Amino acid sequence: MLVVLTGGTGGAKLVQGLSLEAGPDDLCIVCNTADDFVLHGLYISPDLDTITYTLAGVGDATRGWGVKGDTFAVLEWLGKYGAETWFKLGDRDLATHLTRSRLLREGWRLSQVTERLCRALGVEATLLPMTDDRVETRIVTSDSEISFQEYFVKNRWADKVKKVYFAGAEKSQPVPGLLESIRDARAVVVCPSNPVTSVSPILAVPGIRAALTGTKASVMAVSPIIQGAPFSGPAHKLMAAMGWEVSTYGVAKAYSDFLDVILIGAEDRELKARIEEIGIRAAIAPIHMNSLDDKKRLARQVLDLL
Amino acid sequence: MLVVLTGGTGGAKLVQGLSLEAGPDDLCIVCNTADDFVLHGLYISPDLDTITYTLAGVGDATRGWGVKGDTFAVLEWLGKYGAETWFKLGDRDLATHLTRSRLLREGWRLSQVTERLCRALGVEATLLPMTDDRVETRIVTSDSEISFQEYFVKNRWADKVKKVYFAGAEKSQPVPGLLESIRDARAVVVCPSNPVTSVSPILAVPGIRAALTGTKASVMAVSPIIQGAPFSGPAHKLMAAMGWEVSTYGVAKAYSDFLDVILIGAEDRELKARIEEIGIRAAIAPIHMNSLDDKKRLARQVLDLL
Repeated sequence: MLVVLTGGTGGAKLVQGLSLEAGPDDLCIVCNTADDFVLHGLYISPDLDTITYTLAGVGDATRGWGVKGDTFAVLEWLGKYGAETWFKLGDRDLATHLTRSRLLREGWRLSQVTERLCRALGVEATLLPMTDDRVETRIVTSDSEISFQEYFVKNRWADKVKKVYFAGAEKSQPVPGLLESIRDARAVVVCPSNPVTSVSPILAVPGIRAALTGTKASVMAVSPIIQGAPFSGPAHKLMAAMGWEVSTYGVAKAYSDFLDVILIGAEDRELKARIEEIGIRAAIAPIHMNSLDDKKRLARQVLDLL
Repeated sequence: MLVVLTGGTGGAKLVQGLSLEAGPDDLCIVCNTADDFVLHGLYISPDLDTITYTLAGVGDATRGWGVKGDTFAVLEWLGKYGAETWFKLGDRDLATHLTRSRLLREGWRLSQVTERLCRALGVEATLLPMTDDRVETRIVTSDSEISFQEYFVKNRWADKVKKVYFAGAEKSQPVPGLLESIRDARAVVVCPSNPVTSVSPILAVPGIRAALTGTKASVMAVSPIIQGAPFSGPAHKLMAAMGWEVSTYGVAKAYSDFLDVILIGAEDRELKARIEEIGIRAAIAPIHMNSLDDKKRLARQVLDLL
C-alpha cells in the first residue's frame, strides 16, 4: 500500500488527489492527532475530520475545514450560553464530535471510532490516527503556554512562539498495524502539511521515525514551502521558532534521516543542489494545488516518481 | 411567592399564563426531572427545557417541545452515524444539552445549571428542578422495564403498563430552598400535568409532600383530565395502571392529603359533589388552553380564586 503521512488542510488536498489517482484501496493514511482538543465537552480531531470529510466528498474545499454547506445553529446558541465561539463548529460537524466523544467515553479507541465514522460516510481508504493515546501540541510563547487550536484559530498565530513540544508523545504508541504498514509499504508520501505541528507530532510517536528510516520503500515528501513561505498557515513562523531554515531546504533537512525524494516548486530550483548535497533527490514539479485538477496532476506526478 | 409544581407540555401552558398574569418575579416553579435521560452522551431535561423555552419566549407552542423554528441538522447526521433518532433533538435545543452536560461533568448541580441557562435566555421567574439528585421514572410493562422517554416518545405509549416507579426518589433531596418556598408560599398551584409521571415524581422527593400538607398556603390544582380523558399524552393509561379512577375525581383523590381546591371543566360538573365529599373544593372553569388568551384567562381565574 501507499502510506501517506498528513495533517489537515494542505495534506487533505494531496490525499484527495492520491485517492482519485491511486484508488482509495491502495491508501493507508496516517494522520496527525496532536491538534485534537476538547471544547464544549466534545473531543474534536480537526485533522482526522478534514481527511474524512475530504475523502467522503462532503468536505468544504474552499474553507479547508468542516462540512460543505454546513450551518452554525448550535454554535450560535452555545454563544447565548456564554460559550467560546472562536472555533467554528458546524452543526453536521458537531454530530461527528458528539459521536466520537460518546464512543470514547464508552471505551472505544480513537482508531476504532475513526474506522466507524469513515465507514458511515463511505470512506474506502484506510485512515489511521497516529496513536490512540493523547498527544498534544503545546505552543510556548514568551508569557504563556497554549494549545495548538488556541494558537492557530483563537489567536490567529499572532503569538511569538518560543518553543513547540508534543506533550505525551514519549509515552504514546502508534496504533496497531501502523509500523507494519510503513515497513511493508510500496512507498511513503509525506504530505505538504506543516512540518512542525502536523508532521513532527507523527514522527514523535515512538517507533514511527525508526520505521521510516528502516523501510525499504521509497519515502517522498511534497514541500509545503515555496520561496520561503508556506502555501497556508504559520509553518514559516513555527519553523523559525524551531531554528529551522524557512525554506524547502529546511523541510528536506528536517526529514533528512528518512527522506529519499522531495518535490519542490520550480521557483525553488536554486535549492536543488543544496538539498541533493544532504543525500535527498529534489524533483521539480508544479506543487500548487488550487483546483481539483492541480491536486490530481500533483498526485499523478507523485505516483509516477515512485 | 406563588409556588407552581409542573411537568412539561400541559404545565408549561399554565406557567406561561401565570407568568404573564402574576408577573415572573412572583413565580417559583418546581419542575419534574424524572423524565431526564442521557442520549448521544448528553444529559437531557425535557420538562426543565420546555418551561425554560416557554418563559424565554422561544418555545415551540405548537409542538409543545423544543425551540421555535429549530432545525435538525445535527440529528440527521447523527443518524448517518447509526445513532437513534426517535428523540427529536433540534440544533438550538442541542446547545442547551451540550452546555448542561458539560457543566454537570464539571461538577455543577442541576439547579445551578438551570439558573445559568434561565439567566442566559432572559427568564426572570425562579425555576427549580425538584432535586439535584438523579430520580428516574421507570415504566414496567409485561415483558420489560423502560425509561419514560422510551415509553412516551420511542414507543408512543403503546406498551401495556403494569407499574410505574421513581428510581432513586427515596434517596433524593429537594433542591435547597424548595421546602421553605412551599412553607412560605402565598399559594401553591399544581399544574395540569400528568399526575402519574409529572407530578408524582415531585411528590416522591422526600419532604415535598409533607411540606404541601403542612403549608398554610392554599393549594390548588388544575385538572389535566376532562370527561375521563387527558388533554394530551397518556395520563389516562398511567392512572389506570396505578389503579386510580381515570377522572378529575381520581386526580383530586391522588392529591387529597394536601389539596384545597381543584379547577375542573364544566363538562365534569357531575363530579363536583364527589370531590367535595373528600374535603376538596371543586371550582368550575374553562380549563382548555388552546390559545394564548385561554392560558391567560385560566391563569387569571387561578389567581382570582387564590
